[in-house]
Amino acid sequence: MLITKSALLETSKKIQPFIHNTPVLTSRFLNTLTESELFFKCENFQKTGSFKIRGATNAILNLTVEQKQTGVATHSSGNFAQALALAATQNTIQSHIVMPSNSAQIKKDAVKGYGGLITECEPTLEARESILNNIVKQTEATFIHPFNDIHVIAGQATCCMELLNQVQTLEYIVVPVGGGGLSSGTALAAHFFGKQVQVIGAEPSGADDAYKSKKEGKIIPNSNSNTIADGLRTSLGDLTFPIIRDHISEIITISDSQIIDAMRLVWERMKLIIEPSSATVLAAVLKSPDKFRGKRIGLIISGGNVDVGNMF
Amino acid sequence: MLITKSALLETSKKIQPFIHNTPVLTSRFLNTLTESELFFKCENFQKTGSFKIRGATNAILNLTVEQKQTGVATHSSGNFAQALALAATQNTIQSHIVMPSNSAQIKKDAVKGYGGLITECEPTLEARESILNNIVKQTEATFIHPFNDIHVIAGQATCCMELLNQVQTLEYIVVPVGGGGLSSGTALAAHFFGKQVQVIGAEPSGADDAYKSKKEGKIIPNSNSNTIADGLRTSLGDLTFPIIRDHISEIITISDSQIIDAMRLVWERMKLIIEPSSATVLAAVLKSPDKFRGKRIGLIISGGNVDVGNMF
Repeated sequence: MLITKSALLETSKKIQPFIHNTPVLTSRFLNTLTESELFFKCENFQKTGSFKIRGATNAILNLTVEQKQTGVATHSSGNFAQALALAATQNTIQSHIVMPSNSAQIKKDAVKGYGGLITECEPTLEARESILNNIVKQTEATFIHPFNDIHVIAGQATCCMELLNQVQTLEYIVVPVGGGGLSSGTALAAHFFGKQVQVIGAEPSGADDAYKSKKEGKIIPNSNSNTIADGLRTSLGDLTFPIIRDHISEIITISDSQIIDAMRLVWERMKLIIEPSSATVLAAVLKSPDKFRGKRIGLIISGGNVDVGNMF
Repeated sequence: MLITKSALLETSKKIQPFIHNTPVLTSRFLNTLTESELFFKCENFQKTGSFKIRGATNAILNLTVEQKQTGVATHSSGNFAQALALAATQNTIQSHIVMPSNSAQIKKDAVKGYGGLITECEPTLEARESILNNIVKQTEATFIHPFNDIHVIAGQATCCMELLNQVQTLEYIVVPVGGGGLSSGTALAAHFFGKQVQVIGAEPSGADDAYKSKKEGKIIPNSNSNTIADGLRTSLGDLTFPIIRDHISEIITISDSQIIDAMRLVWERMKLIIEPSSATVLAAVLKSPDKFRGKRIGLIISGGNVDVGNMF
């Protein structure tokens, strides 16, 4: 195993000063509805509005002295862009963020606000990668992958480590699956620190590469992905897949309408803004009542970055 | 004074088993933006989604044995309807709720879900009152006024009592002003239990009867009220006005666009769903930077009941 128990303990200690230990919330209404006990680990309250700051911070803290001087770079239209920008700035390191030109203005503003240098590109993967390569060449910045990176995975694992300290005797933890950074980290944390807790992945049916990959025993990337859960459209990487294969007991797939129903329940009943990716975990519980009835279940609420601008 | 310090202490103890002690949240972003320290007392996490359950519960607990048998009645299209229904049900008492026929279905469903018996009426004050009178005659139910009632006021005061226990050395507490139940209760709690804390009311300019009444020294009801903050459209009552006159140091009026801007900040930055009425308190701080700069400020977030249905 590339990531050990002691590495996770060290990671947790190292990133502590730069992140929030987010609260765990409960809802009597949703407990009654699901006939279970649900514990919502609220990374929507995390710095930058998502768990991504954990992995980004750990990646930054593991740079060499030379790497710190030349900064970091990544391409992202989503939560990792903001997270890397803030994690870098908190450690007085420069970050270069390649963002598609059609990214929401609010996201660009956030990255800029956190101190990231934005380079815009055409909204294709090719353009992103070629512009990123140029920046890396010019600046000698270190490329940080949003999820397929052991330091990022170890950082994301700290969320589940906190949850296991906050709530005793959980029987299940349900976690959203996208590229697999959060879900593999969660699986490792539960493996090392959980007492007989099973980790279950929740994945949109429109981007169900983890479900298929687990079934086939090899990575089957999404040929195209189509889901409202924009944080979960990516496919697993070669570092995240084996951990998910070995330590996640099951992947439950969720339709977009199930995601929306679950998201609405949380907004209406818990008064919490969570993003579609996060709603998959409650949707998984609602979809499989027989499995979860009577159980104590941790739900990883990965983030709350929704563009509410057009709702007002 | 009709409501004494010991009455408030007793109220707080009595209603404890039926309500949540809601959390106080903070936001570094909003602290930086306002150059102050803000403490959000989150009644949006309260049972039924607003503070109203506090006063409703206290009114219910102060009924005589005979009154408990014949139940309670009120007319409300808003948060008090749900609160009274649940407060009654929690004490195995029947509640009769008169609601305008054009109330949102989600609100009717909530009242029904909490065990209230709904009678619909034409959406005029006249119709409401005449139907309510009929119900009271037929059932001998006790009418509970949503705010102009000493037990309701004492119940609402417990929110500020909790806040003063949770956060030390507050210099200001800002509270929304509608009919005055919450604001007069907050003012009394601060008067009895606060250490030199000033209570400031936040009121929509489109329903600024408290601002005018305080200025004139007598109740000047809203002739018409026009604001997005639907919980704050009512005018003060003869029990709430004198307390506000004597114990609230200032009323700050807020335009609807200021309410919307503040609400959006809380949704986007704190990931909390708050209703427009609650956004007035942050808007008041944003409107008066010189007054609040450098201060420790408690903000009473009264509730989070927004119809998010059409946002999905």
